[in-house]
Amino acid sequence: MMIVMTPHATTEQIESIVQHVKDEGFQPHRSDGKEQTVIGVVGIVDRDVDPRQFEVLDGVAKVVRLSSPFKLASRQFKEEDTIVDVGKGVLIGGTEVVLMAGPCTIESKEQVDAIAPIVAQAGARIMRGGAFKPRTSPYSFQGMGEEGLKHLRIAADRHNLLIVSEVMDRSQIDMMLNYVDILQVGARNMQNFDLLKDLGKVRRPVLLKRGIAATLQELLLAAEYIMAGGNTQIILCERGIRTYETSTRNTLDISAIPVVKTMSHLPIIVDPSHSTGLRHLVAPVARAAIAAGADGLIIEVHNQPEKALCDGAQSLLPAQIEQLGHQIAGIAQSIGRRFQPAA
Amino acid sequence: MMIVMTPHATTEQIESIVQHVKDEGFQPHRSDGKEQTVIGVVGIVDRDVDPRQFEVLDGVAKVVRLSSPFKLASRQFKEEDTIVDVGKGVLIGGTEVVLMAGPCTIESKEQVDAIAPIVAQAGARIMRGGAFKPRTSPYSFQGMGEEGLKHLRIAADRHNLLIVSEVMDRSQIDMMLNYVDILQVGARNMQNFDLLKDLGKVRRPVLLKRGIAATLQELLLAAEYIMAGGNTQIILCERGIRTYETSTRNTLDISAIPVVKTMSHLPIIVDPSHSTGLRHLVAPVARAAIAAGADGLIIEVHNQPEKALCDGAQSLLPAQIEQLGHQIAGIAQSIGRRFQPAA
Amino acid sequence: MMIVMTPHATTEQIESIVQHVKDEGFQPHRSDGKEQTVIGVVGIVDRDVDPRQFEVLDGVAKVVRLSSPFKLASRQFKEEDTIVDVGKGVLIGGTEVVLMAGPCTIESKEQVDAIAPIVAQAGARIMRGGAFKPRTSPYSFQGMGEEGLKHLRIAADRHNLLIVSEVMDRSQIDMMLNYVDILQVGARNMQNFDLLKDLGKVRRPVLLKRGIAATLQELLLAAEYIMAGGNTQIILCERGIRTYETSTRNTLDISAIPVVKTMSHLPIIVDPSHSTGLRHLVAPVARAAIAAGADGLIIEVHNQPEKALCDGAQSLLPAQIEQLGHQIAGIAQSIGRRFQPAA
Amino acid sequence: MMIVMTPHATTEQIESIVQHVKDEGFQPHRSDGKEQTVIGVVGIVDRDVDPRQFEVLDGVAKVVRLSSPFKLASRQFKEEDTIVDVGKGVLIGGTEVVLMAGPCTIESKEQVDAIAPIVAQAGARIMRGGAFKPRTSPYSFQGMGEEGLKHLRIAADRHNLLIVSEVMDRSQIDMMLNYVDILQVGARNMQNFDLLKDLGKVRRPVLLKRGIAATLQELLLAAEYIMAGGNTQIILCERGIRTYETSTRNTLDISAIPVVKTMSHLPIIVDPSHSTGLRHLVAPVARAAIAAGADGLIIEVHNQPEKALCDGAQSLLPAQIEQLGHQIAGIAQSIGRRFQPAA
Repeated sequence: MMIVMTPHATTEQIESIVQHVKDEGFQPHRSDGKEQTVIGVVGIVDRDVDPRQFEVLDGVAKVVRLSSPFKLASRQFKEEDTIVDVGKGVLIGGTEVVLMAGPCTIESKEQVDAIAPIVAQAGARIMRGGAFKPRTSPYSFQGMGEEGLKHLRIAADRHNLLIVSEVMDRSQIDMMLNYVDILQVGARNMQNFDLLKDLGKVRRPVLLKRGIAATLQELLLAAEYIMAGGNTQIILCERGIRTYETSTRNTLDISAIPVVKTMSHLPIIVDPSHSTGLRHLVAPVARAAIAAGADGLIIEVHNQPEKALCDGAQSLLPAQIEQLGHQIAGIAQSIGRRFQPAA
Repeated sequence: MMIVMTPHATTEQIESIVQHVKDEGFQPHRSDGKEQTVIGVVGIVDRDVDPRQFEVLDGVAKVVRLSSPFKLASRQFKEEDTIVDVGKGVLIGGTEVVLMAGPCTIESKEQVDAIAPIVAQAGARIMRGGAFKPRTSPYSFQGMGEEGLKHLRIAADRHNLLIVSEVMDRSQIDMMLNYVDILQVGARNMQNFDLLKDLGKVRRPVLLKRGIAATLQELLLAAEYIMAGGNTQIILCERGIRTYETSTRNTLDISAIPVVKTMSHLPIIVDPSHSTGLRHLVAPVARAAIAAGADGLIIEVHNQPEKALCDGAQSLLPAQIEQLGHQIAGIAQSIGRRFQPAA
Repeated sequence: MMIVMTPHATTEQIESIVQHVKDEGFQPHRSDGKEQTVIGVVGIVDRDVDPRQFEVLDGVAKVVRLSSPFKLASRQFKEEDTIVDVGKGVLIGGTEVVLMAGPCTIESKEQVDAIAPIVAQAGARIMRGGAFKPRTSPYSFQGMGEEGLKHLRIAADRHNLLIVSEVMDRSQIDMMLNYVDILQVGARNMQNFDLLKDLGKVRRPVLLKRGIAATLQELLLAAEYIMAGGNTQIILCERGIRTYETSTRNTLDISAIPVVKTMSHLPIIVDPSHSTGLRHLVAPVARAAIAAGADGLIIEVHNQPEKALCDGAQSLLPAQIEQLGHQIAGIAQSIGRRFQPAA
Repeated sequence: MMIVMTPHATTEQIESIVQHVKDEGFQPHRSDGKEQTVIGVVGIVDRDVDPRQFEVLDGVAKVVRLSSPFKLASRQFKEEDTIVDVGKGVLIGGTEVVLMAGPCTIESKEQVDAIAPIVAQAGARIMRGGAFKPRTSPYSFQGMGEEGLKHLRIAADRHNLLIVSEVMDRSQIDMMLNYVDILQVGARNMQNFDLLKDLGKVRRPVLLKRGIAATLQELLLAAEYIMAGGNTQIILCERGIRTYETSTRNTLDISAIPVVKTMSHLPIIVDPSHSTGLRHLVAPVARAAIAAGADGLIIEVHNQPEKALCDGAQSLLPAQIEQLGHQIAGIAQSIGRRFQPAA
């Protein structure tokens, strides 16, 4: 950490800061420049300290962190890419691009039975489907719970698919471990720290979605919470951020993909369904994600979207996911990666 | 709800929408305008339906909601202001402006004992202090838990102060009911729907903070979750939203106060400490809040902010909160309200 | 336009609105629903009226526009794609994806002479280079002016390249018409209406960049200003919007591409250099743009970026633009389009 | 400026940066810390250099500016408050709070004649009224031009009022100097650098509005453009920024007032009309601005807002501006300032 003094800082102010640093148990390294004095703080671990603590002291212009506030999730800590092994030979973060697809929410046995072969055919290796739904309105459908997961497991197994599903509360984790291969943390829960801590204790991959107002640094700090508990199998997910533009539900931050690849070793996938919110925008954004280097996609697909209990408007039709699979295969190849539709 | 067709919509498309509306069990009301056809949907409760379900159909230009997505929280449902009775004669939402003040986090018995008389003296009727802290970094201090609440209760009682403190997880509610007069829901938890539902079952006032990326409509929908469970004693809190401007921690949305007063009957207070993040900005913003019509303030105060374990940089000094109390008294009077510093 | 009354609107209020509509010279079409009354306004052209004029009247809940505020730029007005013919067989908006590349700013004859063959080799058909630079700081390099354009024209002609360059003020238009094939309007000038009006009078293609806080609707309204003057040869450009995320200079709104394609018939290209601000992020975002359906790219390239007078950090190196050209060719093919690097 | 190396930077990388700094003509000051090396760059004026130029070099973690990018506008350069003398004894930035009020746009002689006594009565010392209107849509009313200014001048003089009016293009400056006492730069033109440079050459106060996506630092850089030309009589104006919240037209950044007071010596006023966009929100926000320490207000007032050609919905009624004047007087007094309604 470095404390930059204002050009007009008095000798007393500078010496007071130097003393303050010592009092806190750190070693000051004073450097008197032509324009201003800078005090390096040696021995400090930046992430343990609130820089504003020094910023409010008299004569201080600003405080600069030298190291990143997260550690385990950083590329500096671990240089090689993390590849998450989900099972059945499905690796996320390697050469192959991985497709997760399925309905927004599990509605019935018939529904997941109908959708599973569609997504498998399109090249998905992982099926999605919510059992607990975080709904903005208390009057919306709230999900089927455990019963839904049973249906999903049976449908997925029949087509050799793995399962990703959202855990909304820490009390649901144990039950969900019986059914799902990846525990998803939704955007609204990205900073539900009690949930993150509990997920640090399990040994099951976690799909961590970026909050709609979270910076990439905060996303990686949320990952750090889980990793600090010992669970390092984390897949990040960009799903759009909230901006002033209202023509899409959220604004997908496409640059997040190469930025995260620089900051961290963790894999990152993209959710084009929630970010756009409308069906006809999903495929262009999905293709863009792969072209930008995403390690996979999570996409909503429904066999009868006009009857869907949740987010039907953003669910792809069967023919659309199939066509998208073929386009993705071509794009992946153009940048040295691979995707294989079943057909 | 109204479905607006595009100017070029074909007769087939229009008739298909009309049929679709009937199939869903509603009654279509078709109106063929000069430029385009509009189909009113009678019998629908807007908040139960995702308008995008119709928006993706062929020939539809857009779908317009006629009623607000929340009900119990709306000014239309209840015209007169809700006044929350916290006890000991403290009413929030009436003529009197209410000050809540105290440390960011409870650090020790000594700390709360020192701060309680300071805030009481400045005119606070309610003392704040966190026992569980949602920290962006897993390496930051995480709070004293129940032990801290015991200290806070004793200190507060000694000065006839009520208590507001944050509940971070639904598992903490029962324990906290033993100590606190107002259960605070933090900005990160504004859409933790399981927590909101459980708070709907208790009969204790809830201070609901706006999420940093929440619209005012979403804030009121979160209130609706609690109210749908039967708990109508809700105090809303504006605490800054995330924007591109980085000179303050968040951007306090001062207009939210008159806007909420139009949309809802619930009282609204302001947290100038978290929105600004820096001590010297707290008083100007606090004064602005009262001038704009806020029903109260929640402010961080510390006797030794340079030693604070959390957010010391944004905590007011004892002399500052005292001065602020006097300024607020004058401003409140200018707009026909009241605030009474103890001295 | 439709005026939606509140559920509690009185008969007097409704009749007063009906009268008001008549007074304004329009024909009211009243429809009394179960919950509320809706008044259609017939004969109105929405874009001529500020809906808030009615919104503030007593008893009005909200006012809904039925038609879009722009006309000439809309897909409804002109269904088929506009293809801008820049000359020398270069068409923007057709099957072929068009690359514009070159330095941020023209620095010297030597510089543009060195860069022209590099971008031509990579497949660019159009060379970029600023003669007038809008700089946030008055202390930054402000551009070479007309002399720079002369150098650029000679260098470009030698390699059969067309030229795009920014016009910063209406007083520069006439002079620039002597040198450039596309007149660029920068993000800061997107709502410089006097400039837009003057560009409506020329018959030269205009590259209109989206302002960093402009909605897509406002971008199309800016295009409408130019088109209303009779110049319909407009190429839109997404170059990133300002959000709270600071890891990139701006946040590229990748969804803007398919959204604009729905709203308008105008071609749209992407500027990955200004949106990301850092060289290593340019190629991933450029690839994403093509995958999402952009009609072209405008990219900063420099032979010696470490010596660049402007934006060197975001300029691609010669080897990088060449490699990107090959990747784009592959991606374009995957979605049925074409791009041909020279080599 | 300081260049912070990554913890893993090699000796070669560090030495290469040191050499690069020397090659650029500056003096490196190397400091090898425990975790990483920091290289101070001595002799550099930060505002002349793009820090990203160093940021992209191998082994560099980040580059930190030590000084602010603006100089003349900074509080460091000039410690005492600037008080702008507009004439007729009206000082902006002193103890007295100054009210500017009038119609959005000048519509006719009758209109300004009717409004002038209303605003004078409410305590305004300066009358506003646009002659050239920047309209988002080309189909909206574009202003009366010079003829309007003549009417405004006569009406204002009759009530001893000064005039503020917007200059939209540099070609209008000379003409406007004949009529107006303060030249207003609108939000859309905050970075119209050619206009700013020309305003630097005149000796007439400038009201500089913050762009809807401008940071406070950028606002001060825009002021720096004018000041660098020799015109130091600048009044800043906060008028709301664009955020995701749509319940108001823009989000007024109330904290900008105390923040600007820290960063700069220039006075700052607030425009509550454009930020809120709706009449009933104007007064609460105006009161908040004064409570937060603003030096004045600029407010839209209309005698017949329902007939206004522009922004009628956000114009105060005569009775409203009068009541607001009295409230402001009380608030100003509470914080040691002064405002005197005429009555």
